[in-house]
Amino acid sequence: MPTPSGHTRAILGSKVKGTAVYNAAGDKIGHVEDVVLDKMSNNIIYAVLGFGGVLGMGEKYHPIPWALLDYSPDQGGYIVPMSKDELKNAPASRLEDLTKDDSDMRTRTYDYYKTPRYWE
Amino acid sequence: MPTPSGHTRAILGSKVKGTAVYNAAGDKIGHVEDVVLDKMSNNIIYAVLGFGGVLGMGEKYHPIPWALLDYSPDQGGYIVPMSKDELKNAPASRLEDLTKDDSDMRTRTYDYYKTPRYWE
Repeated sequence: MPTPSGHTRAILGSKVKGTAVYNAAGDKIGHVEDVVLDKMSNNIIYAVLGFGGVLGMGEKYHPIPWALLDYSPDQGGYIVPMSKDELKNAPASRLEDLTKDDSDMRTRTYDYYKTPRYWE
Repeated sequence: MPTPSGHTRAILGSKVKGTAVYNAAGDKIGHVEDVVLDKMSNNIIYAVLGFGGVLGMGEKYHPIPWALLDYSPDQGGYIVPMSKDELKNAPASRLEDLTKDDSDMRTRTYDYYKTPRYWE
């Protein structure tokens, strides 16, 4: 079942990692550092964006709901529908903290991006 | 929300890749080669097991539903509740074919392992 733009439905996790990320204005803002998977359900909890200090975030990583990544074949990377300011103010964390037992972070992240909670 | 055995809920995709896999009898049978993610929903389609020829499968990889992986801290790897024969007869494919537009493979795999279809 290809998407309207002809993509297939499936992608390897290892292929997502490292892919460039652009904001809505077309500026390259970072890359996908990793994905966080839910061991207790069949769900992807987050894609994790790394900015390499571009946004002045130091070593903080931004978890975003998986559904916000939209692959652009033209740009060879994902476009996320957020401005720099929206990302600057978004929930962020050290990478290792994103896999700790923190359902509050998950709730804050999904609420910040107005994404329906898959766990309810 | 820790699991009964004290695990946390979340894990990095990159950390899953390469982890050893044991069968129900405790024999090491292979490793997790990768995960396959669903671009059209929030779901993990498969974990992909690689056997390095142990089962005589050559370069075939076995997709299995994510929920079948059960991490054992004692063994430092995942235990899958299948015998060698069950795995030998399971759906298998070249890695690159697992991300093609093949909803039939997904159906066959979930049905083989008697796992409810997340997409229905």
